[in-house]
Amino acid sequence: MVNVKTIILDVLKPHQPDGLVFATAVAEQTPGCRVSLSVLEVDEKTESISLRVEGDNISYEAIAAAITGMGATVHSIDEVEAVNVKASSEPG
Amino acid sequence: MVNVKTIILDVLKPHQPDGLVFATAVAEQTPGCRVSLSVLEVDEKTESISLRVEGDNISYEAIAAAITGMGATVHSIDEVEAVNVKASSEPG
Amino acid sequence: MVNVKTIILDVLKPHQPDGLVFATAVAEQTPGCRVSLSVLEVDEKTESISLRVEGDNISYEAIAAAITGMGATVHSIDEVEAVNVKASSEPG
Amino acid sequence: MVNVKTIILDVLKPHQPDGLVFATAVAEQTPGCRVSLSVLEVDEKTESISLRVEGDNISYEAIAAAITGMGATVHSIDEVEAVNVKASSEPG
Amino acid sequence: MVNVKTIILDVLKPHQPDGLVFATAVAEQTPGCRVSLSVLEVDEKTESISLRVEGDNISYEAIAAAITGMGATVHSIDEVEAVNVKASSEPG
Amino acid sequence: MVNVKTIILDVLKPHQPDGLVFATAVAEQTPGCRVSLSVLEVDEKTESISLRVEGDNISYEAIAAAITGMGATVHSIDEVEAVNVKASSEPG
Amino acid sequence: MVNVKTIILDVLKPHQPDGLVFATAVAEQTPGCRVSLSVLEVDEKTESISLRVEGDNISYEAIAAAITGMGATVHSIDEVEAVNVKASSEPG
Repeated sequence: MVNVKTIILDVLKPHQPDGLVFATAVAEQTPGCRVSLSVLEVDEKTESISLRVEGDNISYEAIAAAITGMGATVHSIDEVEAVNVKASSEPG
Repeated sequence: MVNVKTIILDVLKPHQPDGLVFATAVAEQTPGCRVSLSVLEVDEKTESISLRVEGDNISYEAIAAAITGMGATVHSIDEVEAVNVKASSEPG
Repeated sequence: MVNVKTIILDVLKPHQPDGLVFATAVAEQTPGCRVSLSVLEVDEKTESISLRVEGDNISYEAIAAAITGMGATVHSIDEVEAVNVKASSEPG
Repeated sequence: MVNVKTIILDVLKPHQPDGLVFATAVAEQTPGCRVSLSVLEVDEKTESISLRVEGDNISYEAIAAAITGMGATVHSIDEVEAVNVKASSEPG
Repeated sequence: MVNVKTIILDVLKPHQPDGLVFATAVAEQTPGCRVSLSVLEVDEKTESISLRVEGDNISYEAIAAAITGMGATVHSIDEVEAVNVKASSEPG
Repeated sequence: MVNVKTIILDVLKPHQPDGLVFATAVAEQTPGCRVSLSVLEVDEKTESISLRVEGDNISYEAIAAAITGMGATVHSIDEVEAVNVKASSEPG
Repeated sequence: MVNVKTIILDVLKPHQPDGLVFATAVAEQTPGCRVSLSVLEVDEKTESISLRVEGDNISYEAIAAAITGMGATVHSIDEVEAVNVKASSEPG
């Protein structure tokens, strides 16, 4: 079974809700996760942010829905880390 | 429950109160926190500082109130780290 | 016996399937492995990615088949780490 | 209670007393502290130094008095680290 | 007795055999070793690689023979680490 | 009591005695110390070196005397680390 | 007693003997030592190397003799680390 452990997204968001509310709303989508938000560039009405989500079995759909629900858009999936958890002892 | 662990703010402050008084006043808002203040740029009447607050359940409102109460303004929230603390064993 | 522990590939992929689906599909080829995907450059119809696979006895054939099965091509094998596991105590 | 743990000062000092005497005199102000002095720039009659003081409950007033008592001036407080020590178990 | 622990070679190789086969073949020369291959530059018919072999009592002759046996040439020995294992207590 | 733990000196020395003899002679001044000498620049008759002395209660006078006794001169004291060892439990 | 622990030499050597033979021959001079050789620059008939020898009570004379015995010359002693081993409890 493959477990997605880390996703880093490049996101364009309006200034409101602010980064604190934004990161908190994303973190609510994944129990046990850690969300790190860094502002990359600030424009008049928007800001580009890098959003790193680390956890277990991260659901991209849930995160993306939270992002678009706040008026922001996912520009790109920049990094993904996925781990194949050896469940049984079958050979590769 | 989402717990805000780190906030990094870009702040414009007058020279007085000095960085020591400023960092101490911010630290008083969050029991158990650690505040790191770095001066980024010094102008004639003001200075830009980066203010990093690490702790548990940091209240941005309390910090922002302390900052504006000393005549300074928050330019931007540069980084946020939020952790979703798994309270019960419900699936994500 | 030689055990391939790490392979880093330079891959050109279409935008779909996205990086999340792509990394997950590659991870499914090797029980116990860890796949890290980083986007290097985005063009109109394609994106260049670096794909790092770490594990035990990684099968390049299985990974390459998964990659080409998603419409992508391996540009180059950029790094390889191989370990010679001492099975018996024969001298080198 | 807020405990100042680190202060980094930008100081302009005459060549005498030398850096060794200077650092020692500053260290005498705070029991248990560690003082690191680095010369940044040397001019004809003065030198710019960075002075890092780490310890517990550092008194800026005592340090500043030692500095000015040796004919030097504090140009700026460059960094401050302050920790809010949780004394009782009251919630934040 | 001197034990060669690490050799880093600059090698020019044809595209075939690929890096995976190449690193595996080199690793077969030294029981217990770890081979890391990194591609430095790709040309039309050849590629420059850096080949790091770590292990115990590495035999350069065996490695070089494997390399030339695959149609590649050692450009230079870039780094060597050799350890003098104290066998008896004779003074240096 | 203040204990000088580290001194870094910028020294101009003639080519003879060589760096090995020089570092050894400086090390002889402080029991338990570690001396690191790095050549920064070589000129026709002299060389600039950085000399780092780490230890307990380093005596700058003894080190400087050894340096000048070998025909070299201390250009500047570049860094100093001094620790205030808490002897009794008196408050700061 | 002062113990030389590390010497880094800048050496000019002919292409033969190669770096492997060269590092091995140097390592033979000091029981328990570790020799690291890095090629810095390659010319038509010679190559510049950096040679790091780490050990206990390294004898520069023995190392230099081995180097010149292979037709190479020590350009400069670039770094030296010497430790003053506290033998008795006499004060500094």
